Formats: sequence, structure tokens, C-alpha cells
Amino acid sequence: MNQPELDEHDRAGYALALEEALLGAAEGGVPIGSSLFEGGTRLGSGHNRRVQNGDPTSHGEIDCLRNVGRRASYAGTTLYSTLAPCALCSGAIILFGIPRVVVGENRNFDGELDLLRDRGVEVVLIDDAEATAIMGQFIAENPSLWNEDIGVDEGD
Amino acid sequence: MNQPELDEHDRAGYALALEEALLGAAEGGVPIGSSLFEGGTRLGSGHNRRVQNGDPTSHGEIDCLRNVGRRASYAGTTLYSTLAPCALCSGAIILFGIPRVVVGENRNFDGELDLLRDRGVEVVLIDDAEATAIMGQFIAENPSLWNEDIGVDEGD
Repeated sequence: MNQPELDEHDRAGYALALEEALLGAAEGGVPIGSSLFEGGTRLGSGHNRRVQNGDPTSHGEIDCLRNVGRRASYAGTTLYSTLAPCALCSGAIILFGIPRVVVGENRNFDGELDLLRDRGVEVVLIDDAEATAIMGQFIAENPSLWNEDIGVDEGD
Repeated sequence: MNQPELDEHDRAGYALALEEALLGAAEGGVPIGSSLFEGGTRLGSGHNRRVQNGDPTSHGEIDCLRNVGRRASYAGTTLYSTLAPCALCSGAIILFGIPRVVVGENRNFDGELDLLRDRGVEVVLIDDAEATAIMGQFIAENPSLWNEDIGVDEGD
């Protein structure tokens, strides 16, 4: 893992996101995990449950924020995700004012990193080989399910 | 209602979104409703359940898309919402390629209508007085809950 900007809390946060991704894979789901920390305090975590719950909005970051529950403020928090956040998850980050996002990789999906940066979110991209391998294998084995998850209409 | 661009399906779709908003109000929740139609076919509907479910991601449009369930394509669909979609809900619309959004009002919250238009989504704003009144009353009576729902940190 290329992680020059990560401190010990970041390592714990990202490790939990990766653990969630592996849990999603074991359940037969889309293997994307996420966690939310405030410094060293773990606020919650989650993973993509499109398949498990039949819910297209249950992306990893959304499931994480749902598990964290209601908050009056996200000041000082960092969201960890194994994959670059899509428009849905980036929208949640922007809406709730999450100031910092640590992203495992953007090789398999580029997401909306520019939109996040444009809106003032600090994006730390760590180019993690393990997350890249897990996601790459999933996409190779489940191309239609992956397209469904990111809104690529195969009928177009 | 100022609705020059609405056809009969739009009127049915918007009426359902408004019904969902009123249901949310009756439950003590944030009164924003949404529905998804494909022409005259009702695909599903929902309303904000932040309070009811303790879930910050359950905005009206997200709850609607969750209730609709998994789809391989959103081509030809229209999403109806009583209020201008926020960054989270606009992100969902962009990700899933929903081509058209009918918005009740943007007087109480301007949302991300420009982002939607920039990404090629057709936005029809109908400036509905009933939706405006319901939302205006809710915000006046529940300012902190409303700030929480749109990510305005009162500690800032």
C-alpha cells in the first residue's frame, strides 16, 4: 500500500473498510467497504448490500453512513472507502460536509474524485493493491452486476 | 400549481410524491416525498425517513429508489420530488442515469439543480404552492432537524 499521508488512525479506518469489503465478497455481494472515524474514534462501518438487500442505494459509503446513524455534525470526520466514491456516495459526502475521504483505489472505477475536490473535500488516494485486486476480480466475474451498480445501462 | 410542461402521467407521479410528503409529515418526519414512474407505469415511491428510521441517508428520493429496488436500466423514467434534490439525491439521479426530474419547489431549498442540468438531466420545476407551504411550515417549526437533514452544522 502506498500510504505516505496515512497516520495510525487512518490505517485503522482503512483496515476496517477493507474488512467490510471482504465481508461483502464473502456474502456474494459487491465487495466495497467503508468506515467513518473521528480521529481515533470509530463511528461506524458498512459495505455494499445491493445484492444482499436488493437495495440499489446501499453502496458501501451509504451503508456506512446509515449504520453510523443521525449526526448533527460531521466536522473532523474521515470517511474511508476501498473504491473511489461514485456520484451517489460523493453527493452524501458533500451534503453532510465530511471534510476528508481516504480512497483505496480508483483503477477499477474513477468515481467523482474531481467533484469532491471541487467542493473542498480533501481526497487521499492510497492506490491499495489488495483493494484493486479484489475489485478487479469481482468485475471480471460479474460484469453485468457491476454495470448495474454503477448505472451503466447495457441496453444503450 | 404552475405546470405547463406536465402531462397526465406527470400529474399522477407528482400527486404520489406529494401524498408521500404528507405521509411523512403525519409520521413526524421531514415532509419530502418522491416517486418514480416510467411513462404511466408507477415503479415505486417513498419519503424522507430520517426521523422514523434514524437513517440520515433516507432522503425522499433515496427511499423511493430503495423501494423501487434493483433495476438494470432507468431509461425512460421520471423521478418526482416535492423539493429540489440535494447533493445526495442528485448524485443518485446522476449515477443511475435517470433522465428527467420533476421538482415541486426550490424556494425552501435550492438543492443541486445546476449540477443535474450540467450532467444532462432534464429538470422541470413546477413551483408548487402546496409543497412550498408544507416544507416552509416544517422548517419554521423544526429548524435544527432541518439543518441536520441538509448537513448544515449549527456549531460552525
